[in-house]
Amino acid sequence: MGTNSVLIVGSVALDSVETPFGKVEKVLGGAAVYSSVAASFFAPVCLVGVVGDDFPEEHLEFLASRDIDMRGLRVVPGKKTFHWKGAYFGDLNDAHTIDTELNVFEEFRPELPAEYRSCKYVFLANIDPDLQLEVLSQIESPRLVACDTMNFWIERKRAQLLEVLKRVDIAFMNDAEARQLTAEPNLNRAASEIHKLGPKYVIVKKGEHGAVLYCDSDLCFIAAPYPLYEVVDPTGAGDSFAGGFMGYMARTGVINSRNLRRAVVYGSTLASFNVQDFSLNRLRSLTMDDINRRYEEFRRIVHFEPAE
Amino acid sequence: MGTNSVLIVGSVALDSVETPFGKVEKVLGGAAVYSSVAASFFAPVCLVGVVGDDFPEEHLEFLASRDIDMRGLRVVPGKKTFHWKGAYFGDLNDAHTIDTELNVFEEFRPELPAEYRSCKYVFLANIDPDLQLEVLSQIESPRLVACDTMNFWIERKRAQLLEVLKRVDIAFMNDAEARQLTAEPNLNRAASEIHKLGPKYVIVKKGEHGAVLYCDSDLCFIAAPYPLYEVVDPTGAGDSFAGGFMGYMARTGVINSRNLRRAVVYGSTLASFNVQDFSLNRLRSLTMDDINRRYEEFRRIVHFEPAE
Repeated sequence: MGTNSVLIVGSVALDSVETPFGKVEKVLGGAAVYSSVAASFFAPVCLVGVVGDDFPEEHLEFLASRDIDMRGLRVVPGKKTFHWKGAYFGDLNDAHTIDTELNVFEEFRPELPAEYRSCKYVFLANIDPDLQLEVLSQIESPRLVACDTMNFWIERKRAQLLEVLKRVDIAFMNDAEARQLTAEPNLNRAASEIHKLGPKYVIVKKGEHGAVLYCDSDLCFIAAPYPLYEVVDPTGAGDSFAGGFMGYMARTGVINSRNLRRAVVYGSTLASFNVQDFSLNRLRSLTMDDINRRYEEFRRIVHFEPAE
Repeated sequence: MGTNSVLIVGSVALDSVETPFGKVEKVLGGAAVYSSVAASFFAPVCLVGVVGDDFPEEHLEFLASRDIDMRGLRVVPGKKTFHWKGAYFGDLNDAHTIDTELNVFEEFRPELPAEYRSCKYVFLANIDPDLQLEVLSQIESPRLVACDTMNFWIERKRAQLLEVLKRVDIAFMNDAEARQLTAEPNLNRAASEIHKLGPKYVIVKKGEHGAVLYCDSDLCFIAAPYPLYEVVDPTGAGDSFAGGFMGYMARTGVINSRNLRRAVVYGSTLASFNVQDFSLNRLRSLTMDDINRRYEEFRRIVHFEPAE
């Protein structure tokens, strides 16, 4: 693959979601899907995942239309696709899981097509850390590896998760996960603790409060949230954030503070669009012009002049 | 008084506070004290409040040393000063009130000295909205009037609070109060609703998540939080924010978007120092150099370059 491809491994799902704004049944979802589509605005993507033979053809066509390589997506005959059912109430900050059917995910072992192994940018979306480790063992000489995780793995597979953290450059976590992993209520201290576990960069996603980038153990950048007047469905916000971030880093090819900051804002931009509709619907019609216009709005709302 | 004086009315208190970092008994506190001291870094302050004869002389001397006019501070013989006892746990976001002794506050009616009535900048700190209205009826032709409030008055004195909101230019609220007042979970919509009640500007204080300025019904500026690695005592954060904000506006004398944004950052700066120690201890040794250095740090941590 080209040196600017992003390899993404994680769940490909059919989601049933209810929010105060409506309800959808078995729509396209999954961490790898949200992050791949977000990354695809900036760079070619190589997807690794698994679905059952119930996975609609139209979803495969949509992913292909986004320049997402799907040679790493296994379709298992006679099995069903991973299904997550959840709901959001009130201020939409917390997802309540109603049901999770692992289905085809139960026996999933990621196997990278030979062409994928030279990908330089790697995003290990939220899956079992054992599977994240299997992917790491198959890639050759990556330039930038990032992982995400969730409370379930922090509780149940802490040792394996710590092994993953030793081997990645960037850890994406939301605020609750960062606190849970480190038992440190102060988020800045929690990020310093996570840095000590391995990652050079820690990015804390704070949902409606924006995102924070830590470089080594120091806070180096805070991205304000985009002011949305209506969040229709928060599902996939963190994944589209990480996908936009990794896609932009792959596109620039230069890992420095200037590009990392920009990548956080591009990630925030993708996430802010994503939550304006159910599933990936808003991303389907999104253009680079839309993205760059909103990026500039992010600049305008945080601008202030020097002290006098 | 000079046209750049800030009139501040609110509680002058002795606080007993416990946080994970320690415990203090009957230390200097109160919304009017925190906001007056913060404002005093930028402009002369005229304080309106009441204390009992137990209020230590050293506190009066400290306030006088900050160029705070205390002709409006009544000392009631034979009565005790307002006392608040509270505690913070875990991530320090919520104050738990253990006890409130109104004492001298029970019969307080604010009476402005004649010299105060021409003050052009007015901050009605969190007190009974009936008292805020009494102050409003005594001032002559202010240029900028702001108010704060709390959940207690939103519940118990809604009608009077709505009357106050009709008559102020700026409403300071924390996120929970904005949601409670409007029954609107989306903060941006809540701020639009508050604008409809009267204030041209709404400033939502989000504690560890920063602050947001709304101009008319639009979000116009987001101030990131300052990255603190240790918050010793959050008491007075919102008041030192509002005081720093109003003090800076009084100093500039020009109400425009550029200065309002700067004022929000100066407010955030004062609040960030204030929470680094109990009571007003950190503010006692603070200098304008400290303030401007941190102001510039606020600029550095939100800086990012245009889209390319």
